[in-house]
Amino acid sequence: MLTFIGLGLGADGISLQGLRAAQEADVVYAELYTSLLPGLVLAQLEKRIGKRVRVVSRRDVEEDPGEILDHARWKKVAFLVPGDPMIATTHVDLRLRAAKAGIGTKIVHAASIASAAAGLLGLQSYKFGPSATVPFPDNPSTRPYEVLAENLKHGWHTMLFLDLRDKERAMTAPEAIRLLLGLEERLRGGFFTPDLLLAVVARAGADDCLVRADQVERLQREDFGPPPHLLVAPGRLHFVEAEALQVFAGAPKEVLVWHMTRR
Amino acid sequence: MLTFIGLGLGADGISLQGLRAAQEADVVYAELYTSLLPGLVLAQLEKRIGKRVRVVSRRDVEEDPGEILDHARWKKVAFLVPGDPMIATTHVDLRLRAAKAGIGTKIVHAASIASAAAGLLGLQSYKFGPSATVPFPDNPSTRPYEVLAENLKHGWHTMLFLDLRDKERAMTAPEAIRLLLGLEERLRGGFFTPDLLLAVVARAGADDCLVRADQVERLQREDFGPPPHLLVAPGRLHFVEAEALQVFAGAPKEVLVWHMTRR
Repeated sequence: MLTFIGLGLGADGISLQGLRAAQEADVVYAELYTSLLPGLVLAQLEKRIGKRVRVVSRRDVEEDPGEILDHARWKKVAFLVPGDPMIATTHVDLRLRAAKAGIGTKIVHAASIASAAAGLLGLQSYKFGPSATVPFPDNPSTRPYEVLAENLKHGWHTMLFLDLRDKERAMTAPEAIRLLLGLEERLRGGFFTPDLLLAVVARAGADDCLVRADQVERLQREDFGPPPHLLVAPGRLHFVEAEALQVFAGAPKEVLVWHMTRR
Repeated sequence: MLTFIGLGLGADGISLQGLRAAQEADVVYAELYTSLLPGLVLAQLEKRIGKRVRVVSRRDVEEDPGEILDHARWKKVAFLVPGDPMIATTHVDLRLRAAKAGIGTKIVHAASIASAAAGLLGLQSYKFGPSATVPFPDNPSTRPYEVLAENLKHGWHTMLFLDLRDKERAMTAPEAIRLLLGLEERLRGGFFTPDLLLAVVARAGADDCLVRADQVERLQREDFGPPPHLLVAPGRLHFVEAEALQVFAGAPKEVLVWHMTRR
């Protein structure tokens, strides 16, 4: 049996159900490469679970999951994953391999960054269009710009995740803003402009979590502390959403008024 | 201080961080009207927290939150919420009232049904367009049909939540399918047709959770057990997504091929 268990958004983000499943497992693996989990200390997690946690690399999971699957054939295996499991394709792939090998699978859910970010900003999650990731410049893509443009045309909110290479290389919000302004300069669609209303969510779920909303040109010059960061471009705003952006994310009133008269 | 704490998707869906925050609170409230939490037993939750949980009604929260706010002015108040907090506007509104009264607020996240449903089906969450709720016929709306139509045009997935009036009145998947076929008959857009590929997620996060994918006309005749249910209409499918629908949700191969050649 292979049980995917979400770690949620940081230290102690795992659910009671997830902790119990990990405690009952014979072998516990964890991957920590698909997200940064601020505040997560492996030794503390091992203490809570009461057993050693084997941290696996992307290579282990994607190219050579034989060991995990071999264990799961005869024993209870727990596979700990940042956020809510199955958000990353790599986990769906592992689950499919297990199922094809006749191994039962189970998912224990936890908080995901997408739902948390919407909630922290007070934006209604049903009004979000598709999302995208802003990639590092050595792997350029116009997709985040295109997704943003299409969502803005419809009045929908857009969540933009920021690329993560490893613990030492997580994109920051100002870096992502610079890249998006570069795309605007090339594509000239008029969507990601310096006066666009944008929100930044830093370290969602952590004690020092920070949310900010303002025009792009102002956010570009701010310091949001250590990653993970993500961006949200609001679309059409309900008045409760606008008020939440003002009260919780410090959006200036005149910027909100300007945004709401345009969209 | 008013701390909103997510209960996740059922019994023991609360995170370790959330449990600790509830244990440290002076007063603990819970609202259980925005979602059904399969398997949640109040007495068990009270035992875990070690104090009485005061269950409040929609009316208490929306019209008369004075008691909650009065407590939160001087004491630590925990407010337990199904799923991930702030998904419902009613909580954003309560948080705004607290902030305007000078009361500090905090959010402890947990699993949300939206992220869980995508993960259970193996569908990539970034490819979901906006979502909608299928309302009971006494409160009719064409919005779910319109959202579905727009998403399908773009090749995006659509999540359709089903209306909930109270514990005794939660819409089932076949009921929602009937209502959507009724909308198709009226609007004749050709989007919600009997041959559409659709998925049903029943009791996400519970031990007896069930996922199914097939054509509308077949799902309409199936029994998915007790609610909560929700619907997902897949858009353009990556081959890993198609495989997941086949392996985990029992989608017939010919239905997937037909879907993928059309979209």
